[in-house]
Amino acid sequence: MQDNNRLPRVVIVGAGFGGLKVVQHLRRAPVEVTLVDARNHHIFQPLLYQVATAALNAEEIAQSVRGLFHGYRNFDFRMARATGVDWVGKRLLVDGGAPIPFDYLVLAAGAVTNDFGVEGVAQHAFGLKSVEEAIALRSHILKQFECANNDPAQIEQGALTVVVVGGGPTGVEMAGAIVEWFKRLMPRDFPRLDVSRAHVVLVEAMDRLLAPFDASLQQNALDTLRRFGVEVRLNEAVTRVTADAVHLKSGEVIRARTVVWAAGMKASPLAQALGVELGRGGRIVVNPDMSIPGHLDAFVIGDLALGKNPDGTLHPQLAQAALQGGKHVARQIQRRIRGQPTEPFIYRDPGTMATIGRSAAVAQFPNGWKFSGFFAWLMWLFLHLIYLIGLRNRLSVFLDWVWHYFTYDRSARLLVDLLMRRTPH
Amino acid sequence: MQDNNRLPRVVIVGAGFGGLKVVQHLRRAPVEVTLVDARNHHIFQPLLYQVATAALNAEEIAQSVRGLFHGYRNFDFRMARATGVDWVGKRLLVDGGAPIPFDYLVLAAGAVTNDFGVEGVAQHAFGLKSVEEAIALRSHILKQFECANNDPAQIEQGALTVVVVGGGPTGVEMAGAIVEWFKRLMPRDFPRLDVSRAHVVLVEAMDRLLAPFDASLQQNALDTLRRFGVEVRLNEAVTRVTADAVHLKSGEVIRARTVVWAAGMKASPLAQALGVELGRGGRIVVNPDMSIPGHLDAFVIGDLALGKNPDGTLHPQLAQAALQGGKHVARQIQRRIRGQPTEPFIYRDPGTMATIGRSAAVAQFPNGWKFSGFFAWLMWLFLHLIYLIGLRNRLSVFLDWVWHYFTYDRSARLLVDLLMRRTPH
Repeated sequence: MQDNNRLPRVVIVGAGFGGLKVVQHLRRAPVEVTLVDARNHHIFQPLLYQVATAALNAEEIAQSVRGLFHGYRNFDFRMARATGVDWVGKRLLVDGGAPIPFDYLVLAAGAVTNDFGVEGVAQHAFGLKSVEEAIALRSHILKQFECANNDPAQIEQGALTVVVVGGGPTGVEMAGAIVEWFKRLMPRDFPRLDVSRAHVVLVEAMDRLLAPFDASLQQNALDTLRRFGVEVRLNEAVTRVTADAVHLKSGEVIRARTVVWAAGMKASPLAQALGVELGRGGRIVVNPDMSIPGHLDAFVIGDLALGKNPDGTLHPQLAQAALQGGKHVARQIQRRIRGQPTEPFIYRDPGTMATIGRSAAVAQFPNGWKFSGFFAWLMWLFLHLIYLIGLRNRLSVFLDWVWHYFTYDRSARLLVDLLMRRTPH
Repeated sequence: MQDNNRLPRVVIVGAGFGGLKVVQHLRRAPVEVTLVDARNHHIFQPLLYQVATAALNAEEIAQSVRGLFHGYRNFDFRMARATGVDWVGKRLLVDGGAPIPFDYLVLAAGAVTNDFGVEGVAQHAFGLKSVEEAIALRSHILKQFECANNDPAQIEQGALTVVVVGGGPTGVEMAGAIVEWFKRLMPRDFPRLDVSRAHVVLVEAMDRLLAPFDASLQQNALDTLRRFGVEVRLNEAVTRVTADAVHLKSGEVIRARTVVWAAGMKASPLAQALGVELGRGGRIVVNPDMSIPGHLDAFVIGDLALGKNPDGTLHPQLAQAALQGGKHVARQIQRRIRGQPTEPFIYRDPGTMATIGRSAAVAQFPNGWKFSGFFAWLMWLFLHLIYLIGLRNRLSVFLDWVWHYFTYDRSARLLVDLLMRRTPH
């Protein structure tokens, strides 16, 4: 089937951690690589919450995909949304463009926010998956404070109340960052507003925060958030979200104009268009080598894949799993080209961390080591700077963090009206 | 009329150069200051073109207004759009909020893009007055290149052609920055696209660029832009703009999907709502002390004012005139409060500069000194860093400029879809 005069074509869907890793590891391989993404930039997802809370600007955690691969002679990028696969013709189908033929396909399209069908979430709550969402959330919070400053009666209506739904790492770091913003900077920005009435509520359905962590670290996160001033509601669920209220399972209604939905994610909708077996969270069932049963030239990595460890547990939906998966799949494609059998993917847990707020984080390692507080926070900062892509961005984020640490300033508190393209004229 | 138990209230409309200067100079004065702006941030307008061309990010040239005046005890900010003045009741009328009473009013609302009634400009051309416009222009250019990369036939349709209308300082710097982006970085970002077909056209109705400058500097700017690769059309006017074409007076039609309108500005529409005498460009006619005839407690500064030098020439619409006007008006208000007569405002020309592109600028001073080329460019860089507000922004812009100078990289080439708030879920 393959023409001998041309190199095998590897098409990768998604410019997240996994997709980029595949490109990097195929740099010297005898293949033509095409990376496809609906956006022209990679987002460093772990720091997106800092864009949403005005501590960083979007450009600091985003990187032009084309810029990342200057000098890669076998690389091409196509900005397009993947909509499906023509398995027989071996072509990736995209929105607004010709289908892209492949010999090997890597699906790394990631996950999207899962509203679990709760009414009003899609219309009124903010997810945290894209730069646009982060800027919209930041602008929305700033706007509520300006409204309350102009008309304090709006405080009663929830202008200064933020409800964060979901007590996993994303919810915990969002709640911690927002409450710090409200306690430290907002009173200085709004000296004539009673900012002490601003309020952050974290709602979690289980009886504990940070489910994957050790119980002592879960307790540490809970105590730390409460000490910061977050109202943590455990064993509580959200049943409905409106423009200015959150309805809880207990019947209580919290007046809040800002809702951050960090309760979960599900596989990219692309998965449903493929005609392949899906499992939990809409993720694609894969073979031990991460290829798709029945489509051995197609691999799935990262949040989109339902990969299993040899002990039967699922691969976690973390950056590390995507990075390791990307490296693994780049290697398997090269083995296949050389006629060698593929190898199973074994996820190696390098440890897990979650930040809670200023000088507070938790970290645990497979050997049993556990850390919390200032030392864990320094580790978190250091590792995120290391993993952040691009020297320019590292320098800039480092500068912002040092600045922020000493001044409590948030240099990105720009209210951008996403719908106001032009000034009136 | 004034209650003896309270301080005089000074209300300032507009957080541009002039408005901020008034606040600063009234810091220690026995007045209550309220600054009103529809946006929550000050924009350093002279560098907005660098946001539009991906060299800087929006946060680097914008500054939270509230953040600027931490520690000012007599300061309040109201985010609202001023819509008119109730002269009898001495109240500023705003959109979405109660009227704001004043004893002294300073109108510093600036200017907006003037399309001179040319058909299609409001719908299809990009102005350059707000952060939103700059981000939209940057994203639009990036999108055109991605489209042409996916489908090279779109080059014929003007995907890679940019027409800049207006040969003043804004048009010249825009054309220079865009052509550098196209020549230096785009070929590396799009190795499979024939970027040599990208094209920048500058259209100017007069027979020369940079009208306020000396003839030798005008010639220098023209020669430099042409050397950079900009097609400069003098003595030519635009009669109509559509989504993919610019119609010229000569009858020629340029296929271009991107049009930047830098042909002129007019006073903020607020001026028309005041019932006062307007002059050229809709600017407000003022007394020699910059107060409004018939409303001596109201002053106008910056682009909104039609101020005259003693020799009868108009004050230029430049940052310097706004800054000097702001300082002047803050002083006059204090004189009025003390019962002293006001003084006339005399604009002092500190010299004028315009940048053309990398290592190229022109500068002239009232004493007759003229500079062009690398030295003028260094002066331009230095002065813009000095005038840029905020140490954090200065550091960051300096870092970006050094980075850009040596790498030609543009760290802000993020295609942000202003209408795509959320990822699909």
